Amino acid sequence: MRDLYQEQLTGLADALADMCGQAALAMEHATRALLDADLQLAEQVIADDVRIDDLRVAAEEKAFGLLALQAPVATDLRVVISAIHGAGDIERMGDLALHVAQAARRRHPQSVLPDEVVPYFTEMGKIATALARKAGDVIRSRDVETAATLEADDDAMDDLHRHLFSVLMGPNWSHGVGPAVDITLLGRFYERYADHAVTVSRRVVYVVTGRMPGPLTV
Amino acid sequence: MRDLYQEQLTGLADALADMCGQAALAMEHATRALLDADLQLAEQVIADDVRIDDLRVAAEEKAFGLLALQAPVATDLRVVISAIHGAGDIERMGDLALHVAQAARRRHPQSVLPDEVVPYFTEMGKIATALARKAGDVIRSRDVETAATLEADDDAMDDLHRHLFSVLMGPNWSHGVGPAVDITLLGRFYERYADHAVTVSRRVVYVVTGRMPGPLTV
Repeated sequence: MRDLYQEQLTGLADALADMCGQAALAMEHATRALLDADLQLAEQVIADDVRIDDLRVAAEEKAFGLLALQAPVATDLRVVISAIHGAGDIERMGDLALHVAQAARRRHPQSVLPDEVVPYFTEMGKIATALARKAGDVIRSRDVETAATLEADDDAMDDLHRHLFSVLMGPNWSHGVGPAVDITLLGRFYERYADHAVTVSRRVVYVVTGRMPGPLTV
Repeated sequence: MRDLYQEQLTGLADALADMCGQAALAMEHATRALLDADLQLAEQVIADDVRIDDLRVAAEEKAFGLLALQAPVATDLRVVISAIHGAGDIERMGDLALHVAQAARRRHPQSVLPDEVVPYFTEMGKIATALARKAGDVIRSRDVETAATLEADDDAMDDLHRHLFSVLMGPNWSHGVGPAVDITLLGRFYERYADHAVTVSRRVVYVVTGRMPGPLTV
């Protein structure tokens, strides 16, 4: 019985980590679709989002089953509650990748991105994808040191996001309001995606150490 | 023991409904601060946000205590899990009201809003506030019919949000990129706030009926 219980807890963590992998892939593809104005890839991300939604439902059912049948307490209960929160965050990361893909599709065959902001989104895509993969690693390993590296990555994302605004509002912006509105929303999608990945990782730290790292500025 | 348990379940619902009231007030004040360029009111919303965060922690502790000590199953377990999700959603609504207040503060003593978008934000503020209050009512009453009215309010919000973009991108927009970027983000804050209120209400419907209403388009 006890072995089954531990297996179920591990299974729940694995399910969540797999979701992180899917959310990373979605953002990786969405970013490529955005940068290359690749309609087919955008469509694929949009179609595949339902799979992440299904994984969330499955993870929540696992957690629900654990609570109903095993009635965990103390740390194990915190693990299960964290997993329920985490599944919600990671599903949202999938939604944000979907929004990026939708933006790419909406403007196709044109590119959403004027040349001068391409490096920003290239970099934000890399950081976002790395954050999702690291969050998955932290879920599996419960390694607090890896969790700390997510904070630095998120700071880098915030810097890029702030700098992006200064480009949009700067004197050399020649593309008018429409592209600025698109890019404002896209920047927000990447920034929120990163915040959710950090939140997932922070909850693992909380479970391990009993202390929540300082608040996110969002 | 059974009475205490039912009291705890009711107490959890009350805590959540109170959070909705606080989040409604925050958005009501933030909107007034935005419309009137009222710095003092903006500062108040910003300072008060920590109270909503604290209410979330308290609600989650209540839920945690219920799970650990009462080990609820079936519908009661769903109620508690919904409350944990709901507390997260309502805290986020508070954050979004905070972001509106921060925008008002950032541009003070200037107004963030050119005259032609003032009616949009007046209306979006009213709908957002009403949605939060209704979500609180649904939590207390578990009334599925009231829950259905939130869907219509959210549709109205989405219409306003879409129309706002057509103003920003239309030929008569004379305020340039900076205000358009501000308004894009502000519009998104109201729209997300509404989505979270609807999500809270939908989870109550799910608990009552066992069926989740159709997906939100976000």
